[in-house]
Amino acid sequence: MATRNPLNIGAAARAMSNFGIRRLRVVNPYEVAFREARSAVGASGLLAKAEQYESVAEAVADCKLVVGTTVAGARRDLQHRLHRLDDGARAIKRQLKTASVALLFGSERFGLSNQELSHCHWVMRIPTREEHGSMNLGQAVAVCLYELVRGQKTAPAKIVPEKRAKASAASGDVERLTQLLFKVLDASGYVKPRAAAATEGNLRRMLRRMQLDASDTVLWLGILRQIAWKLRANEKSGE
Amino acid sequence: MATRNPLNIGAAARAMSNFGIRRLRVVNPYEVAFREARSAVGASGLLAKAEQYESVAEAVADCKLVVGTTVAGARRDLQHRLHRLDDGARAIKRQLKTASVALLFGSERFGLSNQELSHCHWVMRIPTREEHGSMNLGQAVAVCLYELVRGQKTAPAKIVPEKRAKASAASGDVERLTQLLFKVLDASGYVKPRAAAATEGNLRRMLRRMQLDASDTVLWLGILRQIAWKLRANEKSGE
Repeated sequence: MATRNPLNIGAAARAMSNFGIRRLRVVNPYEVAFREARSAVGASGLLAKAEQYESVAEAVADCKLVVGTTVAGARRDLQHRLHRLDDGARAIKRQLKTASVALLFGSERFGLSNQELSHCHWVMRIPTREEHGSMNLGQAVAVCLYELVRGQKTAPAKIVPEKRAKASAASGDVERLTQLLFKVLDASGYVKPRAAAATEGNLRRMLRRMQLDASDTVLWLGILRQIAWKLRANEKSGE
Repeated sequence: MATRNPLNIGAAARAMSNFGIRRLRVVNPYEVAFREARSAVGASGLLAKAEQYESVAEAVADCKLVVGTTVAGARRDLQHRLHRLDDGARAIKRQLKTASVALLFGSERFGLSNQELSHCHWVMRIPTREEHGSMNLGQAVAVCLYELVRGQKTAPAKIVPEKRAKASAASGDVERLTQLLFKVLDASGYVKPRAAAATEGNLRRMLRRMQLDASDTVLWLGILRQIAWKLRANEKSGE
């Protein structure tokens, strides 16, 4: 949740409590007073326990799946896979059986930035009208969380186990991988100084698209550490 | 809509506009100023055209179906047929093909009164938690209206197909990638001579597990070519 309006944070907390979702993480809240937002009717406990983070990367570090949210008409330049809210919620529920999932909401005015989106595996969209897509944040949160609990009781949980038990990588590890790959590429002259931020975003998105499992992430970290070491060793011997 | 808080009326209007529902009818609004509610972001037109009524009876007079709304934990003495929100929405959509339907929302504090409920054919319930059922009105409206447009194939908001049509990579390209990665790792001292064949097999399997699409394969080829070039350049300068 990257918003600056404490009333909206409170409203989001209320919807979370309504639908039984507990952990609220707030990135860079503008006012520390958000914890006292009166809009969190009945959810003051949840709000008091909200965790604060300096960056999206830290907020999602222990999550295996990070899902961005958007509305109609926004972000036509989106570089992510886009799911309908109902399809996305289905995928999230599957993942929730074994791992933690982060749902990312951007600021009311601008939605999620490219930088914030680069931490997401994919994005789901609330089907608002093209002509008036922009939702109130508390309402958007309520709709997304409703979709997650929708049909919970009747649906006889027919859980089809995944063929290959694939333990997804934690976001923190994938971010470590992103940073290491960027470092190696920077040392290799792949990164143009002016495009550094864009390149980093591209790499982050690509690594998330790959949906690496935990053990492949470890493998890649080893690979990149070795390359980084070799590049450094070469530099030294060439000095 | 029988609420007294103009901000809630505005928020309801915004959600209506988001999901393409036009006619707002307000029963006995406390403040006439509700028409200027700033919470109706992007929906001021809809709010300006809201119709005012003295009683629920008059407000629903021309509707063929009148549906009340409630949340978990409220109104245990309900004398109406109670539907789940998803089932209820299905029935409403059927009815909407031939007739107009009224959705009734009560005041935030008390919900719909017995008198108001007596105008309803049945009631549908938002599946909030028993322990914290009471929703913010704007959020409740958003959730109900979302359920009405959910899964609409002809929804005005067409789902934009993935920006990047995901074309799987050709096996030949993935194999080129495998060879290049192996070469880079060999030059970095990652490959132990005795385990060379096993390492190559591991890399090959890993790259196939990633199920790269065509464009990500090209991206990776570029990345590895650059690293390979840098490693070679370093070696030369170090000679």
